[in-house]
Amino acid sequence: MEQFLTEDFLLSNETARELYHGYAENLPIIDFHCHIDPRGIADDVRYANIARLLLGKGHFGDHYKWRLMRADGVDEDKITGGAPDFDRFFAFAAALSKAPGNPVFHWTHLELKRFFGYNGVLNSDTAREVWELCNEKLKTLSVREIINKSNVELIATTDDPTDSLSSHKKISDDPGCRVKVVPSWRPDKAVNLEKKGYASYIALLSETSGTDICSFDSLLKALLSRLDYFEAHGCRASDHGLDFVPYAGAASADLDDVFNRARAGVYLTPDEITGFKFQILRLLAGEYKKRGWVMQLHFGALRNTNTKMYTELGPDTGFDCIGNPADIEAVARFLDALDADGSLPRTILYSVNSCDNSKLVSLTGCFQGRGVAGKLQHGSAWWFNDTRSGIVDQLTTLAEGGLLGNFVGMLTDSRSFLSYTRHEYFRRILCDLIGRWVENGEYPRDIASLGKLVSDVSYYNSKRYFNY
Amino acid sequence: MEQFLTEDFLLSNETARELYHGYAENLPIIDFHCHIDPRGIADDVRYANIARLLLGKGHFGDHYKWRLMRADGVDEDKITGGAPDFDRFFAFAAALSKAPGNPVFHWTHLELKRFFGYNGVLNSDTAREVWELCNEKLKTLSVREIINKSNVELIATTDDPTDSLSSHKKISDDPGCRVKVVPSWRPDKAVNLEKKGYASYIALLSETSGTDICSFDSLLKALLSRLDYFEAHGCRASDHGLDFVPYAGAASADLDDVFNRARAGVYLTPDEITGFKFQILRLLAGEYKKRGWVMQLHFGALRNTNTKMYTELGPDTGFDCIGNPADIEAVARFLDALDADGSLPRTILYSVNSCDNSKLVSLTGCFQGRGVAGKLQHGSAWWFNDTRSGIVDQLTTLAEGGLLGNFVGMLTDSRSFLSYTRHEYFRRILCDLIGRWVENGEYPRDIASLGKLVSDVSYYNSKRYFNY
Amino acid sequence: MEQFLTEDFLLSNETARELYHGYAENLPIIDFHCHIDPRGIADDVRYANIARLLLGKGHFGDHYKWRLMRADGVDEDKITGGAPDFDRFFAFAAALSKAPGNPVFHWTHLELKRFFGYNGVLNSDTAREVWELCNEKLKTLSVREIINKSNVELIATTDDPTDSLSSHKKISDDPGCRVKVVPSWRPDKAVNLEKKGYASYIALLSETSGTDICSFDSLLKALLSRLDYFEAHGCRASDHGLDFVPYAGAASADLDDVFNRARAGVYLTPDEITGFKFQILRLLAGEYKKRGWVMQLHFGALRNTNTKMYTELGPDTGFDCIGNPADIEAVARFLDALDADGSLPRTILYSVNSCDNSKLVSLTGCFQGRGVAGKLQHGSAWWFNDTRSGIVDQLTTLAEGGLLGNFVGMLTDSRSFLSYTRHEYFRRILCDLIGRWVENGEYPRDIASLGKLVSDVSYYNSKRYFNY
Repeated sequence: MEQFLTEDFLLSNETARELYHGYAENLPIIDFHCHIDPRGIADDVRYANIARLLLGKGHFGDHYKWRLMRADGVDEDKITGGAPDFDRFFAFAAALSKAPGNPVFHWTHLELKRFFGYNGVLNSDTAREVWELCNEKLKTLSVREIINKSNVELIATTDDPTDSLSSHKKISDDPGCRVKVVPSWRPDKAVNLEKKGYASYIALLSETSGTDICSFDSLLKALLSRLDYFEAHGCRASDHGLDFVPYAGAASADLDDVFNRARAGVYLTPDEITGFKFQILRLLAGEYKKRGWVMQLHFGALRNTNTKMYTELGPDTGFDCIGNPADIEAVARFLDALDADGSLPRTILYSVNSCDNSKLVSLTGCFQGRGVAGKLQHGSAWWFNDTRSGIVDQLTTLAEGGLLGNFVGMLTDSRSFLSYTRHEYFRRILCDLIGRWVENGEYPRDIASLGKLVSDVSYYNSKRYFNY
Repeated sequence: MEQFLTEDFLLSNETARELYHGYAENLPIIDFHCHIDPRGIADDVRYANIARLLLGKGHFGDHYKWRLMRADGVDEDKITGGAPDFDRFFAFAAALSKAPGNPVFHWTHLELKRFFGYNGVLNSDTAREVWELCNEKLKTLSVREIINKSNVELIATTDDPTDSLSSHKKISDDPGCRVKVVPSWRPDKAVNLEKKGYASYIALLSETSGTDICSFDSLLKALLSRLDYFEAHGCRASDHGLDFVPYAGAASADLDDVFNRARAGVYLTPDEITGFKFQILRLLAGEYKKRGWVMQLHFGALRNTNTKMYTELGPDTGFDCIGNPADIEAVARFLDALDADGSLPRTILYSVNSCDNSKLVSLTGCFQGRGVAGKLQHGSAWWFNDTRSGIVDQLTTLAEGGLLGNFVGMLTDSRSFLSYTRHEYFRRILCDLIGRWVENGEYPRDIASLGKLVSDVSYYNSKRYFNY
Repeated sequence: MEQFLTEDFLLSNETARELYHGYAENLPIIDFHCHIDPRGIADDVRYANIARLLLGKGHFGDHYKWRLMRADGVDEDKITGGAPDFDRFFAFAAALSKAPGNPVFHWTHLELKRFFGYNGVLNSDTAREVWELCNEKLKTLSVREIINKSNVELIATTDDPTDSLSSHKKISDDPGCRVKVVPSWRPDKAVNLEKKGYASYIALLSETSGTDICSFDSLLKALLSRLDYFEAHGCRASDHGLDFVPYAGAASADLDDVFNRARAGVYLTPDEITGFKFQILRLLAGEYKKRGWVMQLHFGALRNTNTKMYTELGPDTGFDCIGNPADIEAVARFLDALDADGSLPRTILYSVNSCDNSKLVSLTGCFQGRGVAGKLQHGSAWWFNDTRSGIVDQLTTLAEGGLLGNFVGMLTDSRSFLSYTRHEYFRRILCDLIGRWVENGEYPRDIASLGKLVSDVSYYNSKRYFNY
């Protein structure tokens, strides 16, 4: 068997190789959106074995890998359950042999190579040797070392307004920690008034913010005080996970009444829910604008589709899927309403349904200009689209419908400390795509100019855009 | 003119050629879903001429080819009407010259080569020589010989619950017939209570099943007795052609009342129709689960769009089109409801709108696991997607979002006895795609492991999955 | 830096080069749908400088280029505002360096090369030299000379029924003008009864047509008199820009009442709007059918998304985006209703949402036949899809689902006199795609037959289809 992960992995042409090795490869990483637990960095955790690191343990871990195992019929006991760690690792290795074309195959081998020096192919024959090799290395390889090896400059986590940010503080106070770790503001629980547990969340927010929340205005006041707190801890971006982008044209109903009925668990009409969400997002957006923050909107997922497994394992365990495409009219009117009253911040739109890509790229073009290059962004191929063809599709749609050179580029969106190799994956695909254009005569072979572009997309644009 | 259908047709790289010739090429075919008339096999029919075999006669035949002729402005008389057979064949040959990129061009030439030894290109210049060559061969080439030449091991037809399955019986009783022909259960007429002719269909089902059908329960009872009958004749799969995947969350209205109003031709609300369909599908699914059958759901087509032609020719004559994408929320809730009460069988989801591919692949991943590898499947590129790029798209989406190695692979979905070459077409495209990944460094060049995968997808997976 | 626009630009294989240089390259252009102002031809305008020609001036110009500039954060003053022309050109040149993959990069360089003989790359370093070179040439290069250089045989503009067509008349009366310029009939303002200004538009139409419009019937009568007028000026095609394709099954409400309430600015229900539009389109379609005109339906755009900029600049200034996909059921029923009463003319369907491509291609196949080759057409990749991959996608979908050989091919849809190079761009991509099929063994290397097909798609089919 030939080795497949050479230094020119995915780089099919000379231009691509020059761009990658000459420009992209050695730039630091700004991982501006992810879901890692900052405690892992604060405590500089070491993992007992490769299964714990690669697959996670219990309900917390890499659901991309779990889904592959389930698709192979593996019993939940070996995925999130209590089976011995080697058995779990072995089942994963066996599933991997059926996964040509799947990014998890690439990610896993990049992770094994970059962090453990393993150059072979993981499968049921090699599972034991890989297990032993990795576990030996894990005796000395801590989370911070993984991050340092990856040349990560900054990590932006995703945090609830009620979070104390104590891990972030611990990290920033620790002179031994090279990576900068900042929070991102994700106030979904304060926005989703129709979800279970809203009242108790509001109670928690009251307490954390020291604000008596009894009305829409006092809710906003509480959030603003937490915005200040987040800003003081280095936060420069918000993130919203939306079931849909809310827009309500008409004047809203009495927001206090809606808010209080929500807390009381009383039925709300769809219009009331949409109206409330729109108002709170609009006011928050104005705050982001004022502070120079970036607003990230994630939508298009259908979550918790499997009731039985949701009951067993809770959310974010691999039972979400790609939802219906976005109603572009609602998204457009949402942005327009913000723009019209001067409260549209720098904004990144992400949909996990790639049928939205061309609609969103074309929509970003309607709110550009006025001195900010790439003010509106179509976000990187995300989640189910974080694949070779998904990345190529996102980059091509963006390049054909906008300015690739202003793109803020890649993020991991990950829960795993190994996943910084996804930036390498992205940069290789980016360089390969541009190289193909050059080799096909579609763009001049101007390495200096393309090298600058590749460097911007890999690193400098996000640094500038977020002002990190 | 160079010859274009060499033995390496569509195999652009060395790995692809090794995989195809070394593994896929000589495996038998399990054609687990098609619409051929089993009488053709039971009676081992011979065709009078190539037009009758290739294009069909009257309202029964290959509407893929008819559509090409219509797109060339050919009069219906030469398509489904009474024009002389050579004129019909000539008109088809002429249209074919305008069809580069169309799978019918490939299929036709594969059919002419594999079954008639014709190595040239069919067009208006060659139509006469092809006509004579084929007609000469047809003197000795019967339906069974075509099937044997194609190395078909099993054919699953698509049958109404009221079908006597006499042709299936005749075939299985005939020791001279090598191919196994089993029915598939397609109870659309019993489910589609809002369609014309429902009452008379129920009367027929009453008679066939020997059950007095006067209520929802007795309808189900009649269907169960026919399920038993089908099972005794080798049936291992159901198939549902759905206008939409029905899901009704709330407790249903009185199903007996809805059923009786349907039979009486009284107006039903959309909710009543959806509720009825959901309940009957759910109960049938439970039966499939119990018996170890596979459930196939086909959706996404908009049928009978042309009223004038529907009146002239009836359904399935080439006037359907790709419909709107599926509401993934309904599909998800449908599967979840079945899963929640333990009645979700092994299931294949097929949408003819390829915008559904990534949604469906991601959804299948939410109901996998528990000991069955690939329990939920995204079906092969179907009907309007049964093209080179449609197949590549389906395979890529599946590979990137699941486990390609567990895929049950190709089926013809065809009404033509010549169409087994579509399995060859699929296998070549599969091998070519995997070969490209290898040549591009995206997968190790491990021929043994990839050969196994290609063999599984070409043959073994479907054999195992359906338990044929 | 290597030169990238060689004579084999985009032609990656030998077959492509033979087809393009041997067949497509030198054929005349029939630009059967565009938005240029015919006064430019009538008066044979000369432009003061390259910025005026390339970018336009004020609110009229090439919004594709404006959008790139906005995406680079350029201030509106340098786009549509009063900044010095060189500054505007310089800002555009600078943005272009961030635009690999964008068709504007290709179009601009084709324009600079074909009309100004510039062989370099436009960027901020070269902007000054390009500015001077072009402005020197512009002293002698008039609009007609640009058109003649482009080998344009016919241009069909897009015109309102109230247009006097005086420019068209002036052109046709001028023996010095080689290009034929005909109007196309775009009665959107008469159809869109719910839009602002409807009453005053109807007043204008009354006056122009010399018909007292006081009812639905007299509206139609006025339109018919203008149809005659357009026909007398060479018009052979209509064009409708639709927010959605209207279909109303049930008998319509009182159309006179709806019409009069529309003029009075009274509220109309969505059903009334749809019903009115459906009836007027259906009756117009019957007229097109009678006259042998082509009906073009453009849909899928979401227009004027940015209220602030709409107020400043008005429509068609670069603030539209791709809208939601079409409801294929409505489109199908619309065509069926026309077909059923014998009023379905030759029709081209264009959606700017490429998720509609496969639905529309499959739908066109349902209304073909009866003596007209390619009666129903899926229009060329349009607007936001007028990119390399958009063109490849449209051609592939069409080839796989219909007869590529009957395709009427490319149009500019442009407001710029430089944009005839888009036909060159299209022809190169067409030849390259077919060449790739040949090189990959998917089609015989029959240059004569493919040369005919390429010639038909590039020129002859549109000439025949429109009867120009």
